[in-house]
Formats: sequence, C-alpha cells, structure tokens
Amino acid sequence: MILWLNGALLPAEAARIDPADRGLTLGDGVFETIRVQGGQAMHLARHLARLRAGAAVLGIPTGWSDMALGQAIAAVTKAAGLVDAAARLTLTRGPAPRGVLPPSEPHPTVLITAGALPPPAPPACAVIAASTRRNQDSPLSRIKSLNYLDNIIARREAAARGADDAILLDTRGHVAEATVASLFVVLDETILTPPLADGAMPGITRARLLAAGLAQERTLLPEDLSRARAGFLTNSLGLRALARIENRVFDPDHPALSDVWRWWETDLPPRP
Amino acid sequence: MILWLNGALLPAEAARIDPADRGLTLGDGVFETIRVQGGQAMHLARHLARLRAGAAVLGIPTGWSDMALGQAIAAVTKAAGLVDAAARLTLTRGPAPRGVLPPSEPHPTVLITAGALPPPAPPACAVIAASTRRNQDSPLSRIKSLNYLDNIIARREAAARGADDAILLDTRGHVAEATVASLFVVLDETILTPPLADGAMPGITRARLLAAGLAQERTLLPEDLSRARAGFLTNSLGLRALARIENRVFDPDHPALSDVWRWWETDLPPRP
Repeated sequence: MILWLNGALLPAEAARIDPADRGLTLGDGVFETIRVQGGQAMHLARHLARLRAGAAVLGIPTGWSDMALGQAIAAVTKAAGLVDAAARLTLTRGPAPRGVLPPSEPHPTVLITAGALPPPAPPACAVIAASTRRNQDSPLSRIKSLNYLDNIIARREAAARGADDAILLDTRGHVAEATVASLFVVLDETILTPPLADGAMPGITRARLLAAGLAQERTLLPEDLSRARAGFLTNSLGLRALARIENRVFDPDHPALSDVWRWWETDLPPRP
Repeated sequence: MILWLNGALLPAEAARIDPADRGLTLGDGVFETIRVQGGQAMHLARHLARLRAGAAVLGIPTGWSDMALGQAIAAVTKAAGLVDAAARLTLTRGPAPRGVLPPSEPHPTVLITAGALPPPAPPACAVIAASTRRNQDSPLSRIKSLNYLDNIIARREAAARGADDAILLDTRGHVAEATVASLFVVLDETILTPPLADGAMPGITRARLLAAGLAQERTLLPEDLSRARAGFLTNSLGLRALARIENRVFDPDHPALSDVWRWWETDLPPRP
C-alpha cells in the first residue's frame, strides 16, 4: 500500500512512525474519513474545516493547505489504483518526550491512506450499548479525535450480542449516536437526530441532512427509539437503514427513507 | 535511545510502528508507567495485573509473561545507562484494516521505553478543570488506556491558567483525580481520595496508601476541596504536595503529609 506521510508518497513498509509519536502514546490527534467518488474527495472543505476545528480544540497546528491535502488524497487514491475510495486523513501532535503536557513547538504527523469503499450493507440490527456511555461534557464528543475506545467497546458489545452496531447514550441517558455513524429515527412522521449537546459527533452527512431540511435535532430517549417507525445511520461513506434497535422492528422501506436515499444519490458526481 | 519492541531490543530509529497500528489510528491500547529504582521495577506485579485487566476489558490478548516483560524493562533501563528510571510499557491491539470492530485475531504491539526519573517538584498549584470532565460511566475511567485526550485538554488548561496541574471532575461534578495523578486531601483530620466510581483511575500508589490504612475513599465535591487543609498528588513515579487548589491555600508541611512521605521512603529499596 502506498500512503502519504508528511509530504512524501511512499510504500507503507517504508513509512516511519516515531515510537514517541503522541498519536500512538496518548491518542493525541484527530482524523477524517472521506469518501472519494470518481477520483474526487467529497465535501473536502467541510472535512478539512472539521479537522482544523478539532485540532484547534487540542492546540495542534495544521501546517498543510487544503489544496495540498486534497492533492495528497487524490495521489494516494490513484496510487491505490482506486477511483472510488475511503480515504483517511490522520493528524497527530507528533513525537514528543514523556509527559502529558504537549511540547511548545510540536512537529505534527499527517498521514493519509486510502482503501476500497465498503460495499453497501443490508439494514442493520442495533443494540443500545450497556457497556459504556458518551461523555457529553467533554469537548472530545464534538471532535473526531483518535480517542475511539468508547466506540470500540460499544462495537465489541454489539458483536457479542449478535448485532451490527450499537447506539451509545450519554451519561444522562440521552441517545447520542452509533459507533461510527450518526443516528436518525422517524418519529411522529419527522426524521430526528440527537443534538450535539447530547454527545453526538458533528457528522458531515448529518449536518447536510439538517441543512437540507430533511431532518431535525431533538433530544431522544431510549423509549423514543422503541416507538420509532424507521431509522437509519449516516457517515461520510454512506447511509444504512436500520432493521431494528433492540426489540423494536423498523420498516426499512419507510417512505421517509426513500427521500433521504434520493437526496444522497443526487449529491454524488455523475458516473463517467 | 534503545527500546524494546515485540521481543527485540533495538534503536528507536530502527523500530517500525505500522501506520495501520490501532494504537495510532484509534488509541486502541493500554499502558503503564513504572518506577525503576536501583535497577528494580517497583510493584511490577501490580502494574502488569492492571495492564492485563485493562487489556481484558478491551479484549486485547497479552502474549508476554510477567517475567519476560520484567526482563525487557530491565534491559531497556540498562541500555539507557540508567539505574533509576521511568519506564513505560505500551500495549496496543496492533495493525488492522480500516474499521472500528477489532480483528478476530489481533497481533498486538508491545513497546517498552525508559527515560530519566523526573526530578522532585515543588508543591503544585492546581486549578479545577473547566474545559472537560471525566466519564465515570465509561470503563475507560478505570483502565489506563491510550485515550488520554481529556487529561491533555485539562493539563493544557492548567498551563494556560498558570497552574501546574488540573483537577478533573466527573460529569456529575464529583472530584475524580488530577491529570496524571491520584488526588488526596486532608479534611477533618483524615486523608481522603475519590472512589473509583467517581471517575478516579485505580492508581497503584493510591491503592497501596488505602491498603496501608493511611487514606480513605470518599466522594468529594469542589466545596470540600475549598475547605481542605492540605493535599497531595500520587502516581507511580512519586508524590507531590499541593500548594493550593484554585484560591484555597494548602499547608505543604501538614503533619499528615509527613506520615505519607515517610511511608513512601520506606517502600523504596535501600540505596547501594
């Protein structure tokens, strides 16, 4: 695999990640997963704005221009022999001596990789995670940081319970999101998604659905999920219908979902 | 620097961390910081038990015996030309393809480094972090994981406010711990520390102080800190008196602290 590391395009085997990189030692960084379609990084400006906003919360400088990063994503995708791809851009604070306080002059690491887009998945069976909660009182709930263990714990719980994904609650019991996706449910004929204040990550597809007027933010409780008619998950790679959450069976062909599916398709660039 | 990586002792420049290591991409791992004194890793069995307990929560296999890891710490310390040292043992889930769900057969990464012990520090001025909270409802609050960003955010806040450290509260407003240390305060002539249920990491020095009968667990609120007479921080590298928390000035020479300091000294192996 060819990747892009701090300005160089090189084979993964030749890429040197410093064992003292704070991304490795402390999860000190942020990342983006970006859909590349027809060679084009979709909504790149939004992704890079979110990356920079997250880095600003952590005080990590972002030395590369949007243009340079866009070109790097295109180069990595092309080197992988892909036209459609899932690209990942990781920014860490870079190597540093022992200690939690960041160095005053960090040398951040920027790493870009690309792989095949995951194939469309059938409607998902989800459980409500009992193993952990989102922390709505941490700024980390609102940035896409490398601290992904709560979601990993919930995803492992889902697998152990025979489900495809898990819905995380915040510490107050409000519904937040799924492990790698924003959650939407159809309730009272409206498509609803939890507000950021309830521990939902500010997903880019989520923001676009809200801006398109197709969905609204509202605090959701587990009992709301158990009376919803339908639901779906979104992230930057795509949409996925929900077949059920816990014992509540959803309608994967609900008309509200058709509108959203049509909206998603019209956003994609025309096939060559 | 010489480090130990998956069984090999080698220069840091020659160590290869895979760019797909989940420790780097998702903070998927645990670590220990261990005091080495007179060439001896202090309380090694406790550290390795905690590491293994944390790895079990995450489902990361730990393939190395306590003896092998102890020998590795000794070898790294010796290669650094040190007799007293701060050793760090990092265990990640290892490299994996994209995705949050862990691979069914992981190949974990074990990395050991050693550096000089930090010099004794003067009494610390601490603030109460306003920037983030500990998540008492996540199992991560009770394991020493690579997801360290909340503590980094709080430590940066402390530095920005001219303080040495920050005290983190949990999402309910209970006092939890400092950014790299357990917190103890002298209140009503008793030495108190927050219970694990309030988001305190199960520190090894903390557990030993409790077992020695020198301190007790009790839920603490910020107002308790503002009427405490004295306080101190502990981690595996040592103790540090508190000079103040916010506006409350502490007595760094309080007799209760002398008892604790004496207890710490008697635990260390005799100087050669």
